[in-house]
Amino acid sequence: MSDKIKMQLSCPMPKMDFDIVTLGHGSGGLLSNKLLDSGVFDLLSNEELDQRHDGAIFNLDGKVAFSTDSFVISPIFFPGGDIGELAVNGTVNDVAMCGGIPKYLSLSFILEEGMKMEEFWKILVSIKWACEKAGVKVVTGDTKVVEKGKGDKIFINTTGLGKIHPQADINVTNVEAGDKIIINGNIAAHGMAIMSVREGLEFETTIESDTCNLNFTIKALLDKFGKDIHLFKDPTRGGVATVLNEIARDRQIGVDILQKDLPLDSQVAAACEILGFDPLYVANEGLFIAVVKNEIADEVLATLKTLENGADAAIIGEVVEDHSGEVVLTSTIGGKRVVNMLVGEQLPRIC
Amino acid sequence: MSDKIKMQLSCPMPKMDFDIVTLGHGSGGLLSNKLLDSGVFDLLSNEELDQRHDGAIFNLDGKVAFSTDSFVISPIFFPGGDIGELAVNGTVNDVAMCGGIPKYLSLSFILEEGMKMEEFWKILVSIKWACEKAGVKVVTGDTKVVEKGKGDKIFINTTGLGKIHPQADINVTNVEAGDKIIINGNIAAHGMAIMSVREGLEFETTIESDTCNLNFTIKALLDKFGKDIHLFKDPTRGGVATVLNEIARDRQIGVDILQKDLPLDSQVAAACEILGFDPLYVANEGLFIAVVKNEIADEVLATLKTLENGADAAIIGEVVEDHSGEVVLTSTIGGKRVVNMLVGEQLPRIC
Repeated sequence: MSDKIKMQLSCPMPKMDFDIVTLGHGSGGLLSNKLLDSGVFDLLSNEELDQRHDGAIFNLDGKVAFSTDSFVISPIFFPGGDIGELAVNGTVNDVAMCGGIPKYLSLSFILEEGMKMEEFWKILVSIKWACEKAGVKVVTGDTKVVEKGKGDKIFINTTGLGKIHPQADINVTNVEAGDKIIINGNIAAHGMAIMSVREGLEFETTIESDTCNLNFTIKALLDKFGKDIHLFKDPTRGGVATVLNEIARDRQIGVDILQKDLPLDSQVAAACEILGFDPLYVANEGLFIAVVKNEIADEVLATLKTLENGADAAIIGEVVEDHSGEVVLTSTIGGKRVVNMLVGEQLPRIC
Repeated sequence: MSDKIKMQLSCPMPKMDFDIVTLGHGSGGLLSNKLLDSGVFDLLSNEELDQRHDGAIFNLDGKVAFSTDSFVISPIFFPGGDIGELAVNGTVNDVAMCGGIPKYLSLSFILEEGMKMEEFWKILVSIKWACEKAGVKVVTGDTKVVEKGKGDKIFINTTGLGKIHPQADINVTNVEAGDKIIINGNIAAHGMAIMSVREGLEFETTIESDTCNLNFTIKALLDKFGKDIHLFKDPTRGGVATVLNEIARDRQIGVDILQKDLPLDSQVAAACEILGFDPLYVANEGLFIAVVKNEIADEVLATLKTLENGADAAIIGEVVEDHSGEVVLTSTIGGKRVVNMLVGEQLPRIC
């Protein structure tokens, strides 16, 4: 039995007077307080949250990373996860990509009137589970409710905060020609997991979202390689292609990647084929790109393969002086083509 | 000409390729980047935001306050403000209520497909204006887009961060019987301003929202009175009645208030009468309740009257040992009644 299912079983839904969300739950008055007292505060309890003030108060010292994301994914439950754990992992990972060690989260809900309380509770337990797994805590929050038809069940904002790793110096300006580009695992799983549900393919494939917290893997790499890691970026919306383009644009440098080295699960590859998606543009939720000094690339790769979420890691390309601002892919048959940013919207509401 | 209008004139909408928000603007790809590059980054520019990383990196030292709020107000433009400045002020004030000096904000949008870019720009300029006025900066952000009919124009989350004032010790456990309860101004303006628009009364009254940043007023009080101020709370959703009930409940103590001392503008009072609202439950966006040591109450009041947003301040009641957990109001004609928390939802989507 997975840890998540164990936690779901050990956190049964408390007895509430209501089984759907009503506008009153966003009133700030009695019903809002009842909702929180019915179990939300108990479930997520920690020293800072229990202050129950308008915000949390705690100590921080030194350089910190601060990142925010709103999550509007549809459907809210999908193969491999749900909007709750996605909201925790997404922000945890953004803090980690800055070289931060995520510690505190804020959590804000926009609920649609009529949402089932049971689903809301399931998402809350999932948030708790993801927080424990990532070693972070929700210290402050907010709940708003909008009328039926003015939202879509649940939108979640998380904002994260953590100290910067003492050995980290993550900055696109550190990226140099010669640097190697490493990815920690198979691409395109998250987007295709969502797409398979939307297109009704879920019973024919076992594709699951790769949503996970990457902070411990990032920390282990920083512990070992410090400033020789020049950049981390997570290829979420827009996929690997967009993130690499952002690096090429922001650093005004070229990026070369080899199609043959892009790690891609065969089921995901097949789903991309069937549905007409280029996996380079498909969203990921458990991946990061590391741009590292050439000399350490092989060692980073070897280390990464021993770490959580790193088994399928690969060196996928390098930073070059040519074609500044552009990403060039060498295909499996040796042809070269420029890979642009994602144009238009491939998969709306993927996170 | 108001400072806000001056800023609107000095920040004309940049030339964009699009005049409405499309799903592609939330793709994370080219259109998302275009939207940001079309002027958003330039408009809100500062050292941290310009890093354009997944999060912002900055230094912090010591005790901090951290607070989040999502804003779903409808309509998004209302007499006295709009959702943009409300989102800045709301979070700035929540940080201030903790005794914090707000400095950094994250800013996250959930836009509905089809929203007019012109309205979005107007809100962005308003955010910039409110940030400058409050002395805070937006250092990181996010934009998501949902399909038409799955949102309502724009929802905004802001999360704020600031150091705790060195003389502050704001905590409900500090509240003691004998403490005086002070409010900084007239109650119920925000809620009635919104209600007057919704009910089509806006041309007959000049009621405006009281949305404003309270951080400088709070700081001035902490500078002068330090730990003798036991608690700050802002009576937003749920109004003054709900906030006082939270104090009575959390501290397990009684609260007495005098109806005759509640500052209330006559137009707002009339609107409340007509529409059948009790002003004690109507939302405020520019008010705070200070619970202070009895001995300094008159001096706090005198000081407050000299400060921004304090001209109409009043002592409205006191903390008592009797009727623990309850708020009791003495009416203008001398009768006493228990004032409960807001039950149900009085004004949905008031903030």
